[in-house]
Amino acid sequence: MATGFWKDNPAELLRVRKGFDLRTVDPDATPGTKKGREAGEDELEESAQELRELQEKLYAQSKVGGQLRMLVVLQAMDAAGKGGIVNHVFSHVEPYGLALTSFKAPTAEERAHDFLWRIEPHVPGPGMIGVFDRSHYEDVLIQRVRSFAPPGEIERRYGAISDFEKRIWDKGVKIVKIMLHISPQEQEKRLLARLDNPEKHWKYNTGDLNERLLWPAYMDAFQIAIERTHTEFAPWFVVPANAKWYARAAVQRIVISELSAMDLQWPVGDFDVERERQRVAQSADLRWP
Amino acid sequence: MATGFWKDNPAELLRVRKGFDLRTVDPDATPGTKKGREAGEDELEESAQELRELQEKLYAQSKVGGQLRMLVVLQAMDAAGKGGIVNHVFSHVEPYGLALTSFKAPTAEERAHDFLWRIEPHVPGPGMIGVFDRSHYEDVLIQRVRSFAPPGEIERRYGAISDFEKRIWDKGVKIVKIMLHISPQEQEKRLLARLDNPEKHWKYNTGDLNERLLWPAYMDAFQIAIERTHTEFAPWFVVPANAKWYARAAVQRIVISELSAMDLQWPVGDFDVERERQRVAQSADLRWP
Repeated sequence: MATGFWKDNPAELLRVRKGFDLRTVDPDATPGTKKGREAGEDELEESAQELRELQEKLYAQSKVGGQLRMLVVLQAMDAAGKGGIVNHVFSHVEPYGLALTSFKAPTAEERAHDFLWRIEPHVPGPGMIGVFDRSHYEDVLIQRVRSFAPPGEIERRYGAISDFEKRIWDKGVKIVKIMLHISPQEQEKRLLARLDNPEKHWKYNTGDLNERLLWPAYMDAFQIAIERTHTEFAPWFVVPANAKWYARAAVQRIVISELSAMDLQWPVGDFDVERERQRVAQSADLRWP
Repeated sequence: MATGFWKDNPAELLRVRKGFDLRTVDPDATPGTKKGREAGEDELEESAQELRELQEKLYAQSKVGGQLRMLVVLQAMDAAGKGGIVNHVFSHVEPYGLALTSFKAPTAEERAHDFLWRIEPHVPGPGMIGVFDRSHYEDVLIQRVRSFAPPGEIERRYGAISDFEKRIWDKGVKIVKIMLHISPQEQEKRLLARLDNPEKHWKYNTGDLNERLLWPAYMDAFQIAIERTHTEFAPWFVVPANAKWYARAAVQRIVISELSAMDLQWPVGDFDVERERQRVAQSADLRWP
């Protein structure tokens, strides 16, 4: 905010409201700012310190028994920029305070359990910012679109997700759920760009195209998932993501806003500072070798 | 190297050699460069991209079955700057490719097992840079100094560590062990600085002073640990660390050198690029909503 990049706060503008309709979200839009790419990249750099200080406070309070922590859920179609968010927004928080989990297609063992079984161990501990690259929402997105689970089971999961999110929220987890929203045309450009650059071929997955062809079904599944699981304690934010610089700056600002709302304070030491100074001074003649 | 900051490579200069004597290492020295703080901080920034590209290649090769990975072990007296190394050197690698583990005093369950039991699950997987903030070396450092284990058991551990390190090296783990070496006078300054800044009080631990008073015994334990576990496949580097800017730039350059020696290549895609371009083109008329 300090740099004047944001006219309005994306944490308010992009937060899902009653009556939300994904079809009305323009992936090319840049709500909250009238500025362009260069200014957006500057904003990302300049606000990194603000994010880092908040994250350090979050981490610090846990060292004196505080229970607060954050969980950021990232969901999107392929090539929408989840990786870029991790590498350009969350790389600016201290590695000590970041717990990143990438959820892949479930293993046979994971499939033999309830869908939340593999999620639970990755709920962030006190002081941490947990980031889920994909998440339990895959179980109502690809699983719905591909009919990997029967309709009744998919139906059950929306409620189970909200119960789970309420349960961890009660333990001090601030939940921020983000959908990066790109257009199929933008995805096409990005997939072709990957194919054009041999250094990016390892990121290209021939299976992604199959999901691409199911775009309308995925958008329906996102709409329903957002409607059914958007709550006061676990809100969704839908971020237009055709412009990478916008999506990154917006996610950074959403995270900063949500951390700021936690009213974090530097913990007060539980020791006598003067006495400790004296103890250090007593060892001032220590020499080695 | 590109910036001319390094006259000689610290990966060579700081690598432990036969006949190594910790008493001859000056914590104030800056081997390999004649430049100062400002140039050192520039070097750290400017070489971050070099580190990131190597790390990305390391990560990429694992996606096509490569087994290579790196383990960086950080050991030091309190306030020597381990945290700064993590936050200023390793924060520049992609979060996806970094696995940081901080080892604390062992729990009752951990103490009931062999000392390597809690280490094994944190050996980095293919493509990852694992960083240990403290490690299995605590089991021959504080445990030796404090007699937490009988002498015969400590004695056994040196060999067990080398067996363990050889075993994981055989699986593709490049091991880099770093001791940050500060003087007791420098530690005193840093502890007092923590006491002077209320925002840093949460980092201050009254117990640290007890270890400080055992400085000579710790230096003996480091000397012995380094002698007994420095091997071709798991070398030690002793980094003068009174100047933070030097220690950070030196560790960054050591990691870059060791990654470079792995001769990493971008993996070649296992798909037909032209056919994939056509498949993407076939879906070019996809529109939503």
